Amino acid sequence: MADSPVHQVVIVGGGFGGLFAAKFLRRAPVEVTLVDARNYHLFQPLLYQLATGILSEGEVAPPLREILRRHANVTVEMATVEGFDLAARTVTAQRPDGTVRTYPYDSLVVAAGAAQSYFGHDEFSRYAPGMKTIDDALELRGRIFGAFEMAENEPDPEARRAWLTFVVVGGGPTGVEIAGQIAELARTGLQGNFRRIDPSEAEVLLVDGGKEVLATFGDRLSAKAAAELRRLGVTIRSKSVVTDVDPFGVEVRGADGTTERIVCRTKIWAAGVQASPLARLLAEAGGATCDRAGRIVVNDDCTLPGHPEVFAIGDMMALRDLPGVAEVAMQSGIHAANTIKRRLHGEEAAMFTYRDLGSMATISRFHAVVSFRKLRLSGFLGWLMWLLVHITFLTGFRNRLSAMFHWTGTFAAGGRAERTITVRQTVGRVVLEQAGEGDIARVVPPFVRHDDAGDAAPDDGHPPP
Amino acid sequence: MADSPVHQVVIVGGGFGGLFAAKFLRRAPVEVTLVDARNYHLFQPLLYQLATGILSEGEVAPPLREILRRHANVTVEMATVEGFDLAARTVTAQRPDGTVRTYPYDSLVVAAGAAQSYFGHDEFSRYAPGMKTIDDALELRGRIFGAFEMAENEPDPEARRAWLTFVVVGGGPTGVEIAGQIAELARTGLQGNFRRIDPSEAEVLLVDGGKEVLATFGDRLSAKAAAELRRLGVTIRSKSVVTDVDPFGVEVRGADGTTERIVCRTKIWAAGVQASPLARLLAEAGGATCDRAGRIVVNDDCTLPGHPEVFAIGDMMALRDLPGVAEVAMQSGIHAANTIKRRLHGEEAAMFTYRDLGSMATISRFHAVVSFRKLRLSGFLGWLMWLLVHITFLTGFRNRLSAMFHWTGTFAAGGRAERTITVRQTVGRVVLEQAGEGDIARVVPPFVRHDDAGDAAPDDGHPPP
Repeated sequence: MADSPVHQVVIVGGGFGGLFAAKFLRRAPVEVTLVDARNYHLFQPLLYQLATGILSEGEVAPPLREILRRHANVTVEMATVEGFDLAARTVTAQRPDGTVRTYPYDSLVVAAGAAQSYFGHDEFSRYAPGMKTIDDALELRGRIFGAFEMAENEPDPEARRAWLTFVVVGGGPTGVEIAGQIAELARTGLQGNFRRIDPSEAEVLLVDGGKEVLATFGDRLSAKAAAELRRLGVTIRSKSVVTDVDPFGVEVRGADGTTERIVCRTKIWAAGVQASPLARLLAEAGGATCDRAGRIVVNDDCTLPGHPEVFAIGDMMALRDLPGVAEVAMQSGIHAANTIKRRLHGEEAAMFTYRDLGSMATISRFHAVVSFRKLRLSGFLGWLMWLLVHITFLTGFRNRLSAMFHWTGTFAAGGRAERTITVRQTVGRVVLEQAGEGDIARVVPPFVRHDDAGDAAPDDGHPPP
Repeated sequence: MADSPVHQVVIVGGGFGGLFAAKFLRRAPVEVTLVDARNYHLFQPLLYQLATGILSEGEVAPPLREILRRHANVTVEMATVEGFDLAARTVTAQRPDGTVRTYPYDSLVVAAGAAQSYFGHDEFSRYAPGMKTIDDALELRGRIFGAFEMAENEPDPEARRAWLTFVVVGGGPTGVEIAGQIAELARTGLQGNFRRIDPSEAEVLLVDGGKEVLATFGDRLSAKAAAELRRLGVTIRSKSVVTDVDPFGVEVRGADGTTERIVCRTKIWAAGVQASPLARLLAEAGGATCDRAGRIVVNDDCTLPGHPEVFAIGDMMALRDLPGVAEVAMQSGIHAANTIKRRLHGEEAAMFTYRDLGSMATISRFHAVVSFRKLRLSGFLGWLMWLLVHITFLTGFRNRLSAMFHWTGTFAAGGRAERTITVRQTVGRVVLEQAGEGDIARVVPPFVRHDDAGDAAPDDGHPPP
């Protein structure tokens, strides 16, 4: 129990779930502490635009404290949550300098989201980064633009072809959007930039285990999306599973059981998700169970069984087969906030009801598929709706303007404004990883400042799982 | 001698010097190969705006091949130059995958610029990053915004004070601009963002060896700049030298010879420059000499003594005490291009004459100092001129619009749009470096994905010296 007379709410995670929970507690007589290991709210649905050079970090990931600056009852803490004590009602978190702090709560909202899942093959991750974090997207930005750089001055045609082949694993919205963007980038975004290669000769393959991409959108939209992807030059390998990934290619098993090797340098993993490891930690602390995707099986009102004061929301909760999408996270965050407010008024908690607002995926500029109740839109109309919704939901007035500005440039002229390959997400890193242990010493020098080379081991730049 | 019948020009470096050389060879009957280890042209005068969250990477560092896409006779190569053979007329460079390529030339323009100089104390660099590269600026962005994050949840008042103290070393334009920006950020850029600290209590110290900041601007502007810095709350320590830097502070020796320790977490080094190591390599290959700052002593026409076909320009050349500024680099780049063209017409090379277009430094929004011929401007008028010149010189129409857009936001509302602390330039790294060897294992876990922790040593993210 917290010492303070004011009801203490601790929210873990500043994604859609946590942010909306904090926002909807604005006028409540509570003090809110929002704990996140990062200083930003990630607008996940646009992450693929960071990876492909359309938007900047600041546009996709505005600072949490800036978004919440007018929410006087919210304190934002940059710290990594490490444990829950549901009996003592405390959360422990490690600050970036290694010191540990304990946060007492009266109500706890855990919204730590999900990470990429490699279905038991975590070793794939270094060759096929996921699409879940800002660092993932920056890494991919370096790899994607770096691949064209490498192809340009690669004399061997086969090696050049490998640099110009991109394999995207997973045919959900993220996989479809990134595949479409790479294809469009290659066709229109790099015009006139190269002398020896024609970037539009790049090959983009989308490998998906299902019958067709965007299966959840229904047959008609699924077919429309596939047709538009093919028009862009994307090769779709449906009913196919990636069985191995190495620096120079992937192994794909098709529907007929035969295995084929695809030679390619750049791989992107958008195939599966798995709840944050905090889900298991919380479940164990509260005697709850997790499903196969690591999500906590919660009550109808998003609380842990036996712990009405503890909410697990968004991608971390297993409830009535609700999908792991931004809408569910937002609505369950709002539900948690409202439930806390109701209880303070002595009212009963209500069951969480999800209002499906539909789903959408953009395939290329001027082309998106939208499924909204009985409405099915595709093509330009779908794209207009996509644009409208994303401008509405983008956080912050200035970010909206800023994104619109960049979109105007990209959609009108096809260009990409954000293509900087920093040393940190450089071709060098790709190459280092692909060089094999023995070659590393030879490859390192141009990328490392001598006085720092020896002690940088721990900072490999990857986010926590 | 190149095999090709067309005159081959190799340009090393895509900064102001190399870029302008390439641009001014547009209509010449030559083939140009521009070799740079990076994929971008860095607009160095605005780097401090990247470090303080105003502009994004793409705005400060547009891709070289995008800038040069209409220059059909220019091929851009992403590779790190490693050697010159002036007898064979070749340059060797390492591609990011470790393979080495040789570029034959008829004319060679070397414009590899300068790096930060720590006056023999390179060990300072890890605690006090310089301000020369994109990676420097991103590292500093993480450290600056991270310092406020750390202060916010630091219970100990002394430790909090250390996080809120920023020391900038060097009172030239870069030092003045970054000090002014941090002070302004603290006073107006983070309003309402924090609950426990008042960011405007941050202390910014500018340590300078001279009598007053911006010495080269003359007494009147120098005094104006100092007064405006003081109005912003910057403490100026003139006639002072930094004698030691460690994770938790700096040691400063004042004019009276006494030494004082300033406790501070964030240090920025803007004190000196030193020509790229390629200058020495080139000088040795051509029998030329270097001055104390590592710059090549060149002929009046920017060529190496005895090698009329080899130009060393910009920050790499020692010629008539010309300063290491963007204007000198641009004009010497243009001079090299024009000299190559004259020779192709059988004309004599002319001596390089530098037309001093003045200098300027912005102190805060609406306040800059400008020295242009006999004109001396300060305050708002100076700032308007600064704005005009920077909009004019920013590379690319879209970048101009984009920067103006961000400037409107920052100058009108005081906000900062680009504040993302990625894991790669994270507080975690600062802390790792400051934790000492023994503590690292304890600090690492939240920042590292388990499967990658073991083999990331070489990628420490620092640019080559």
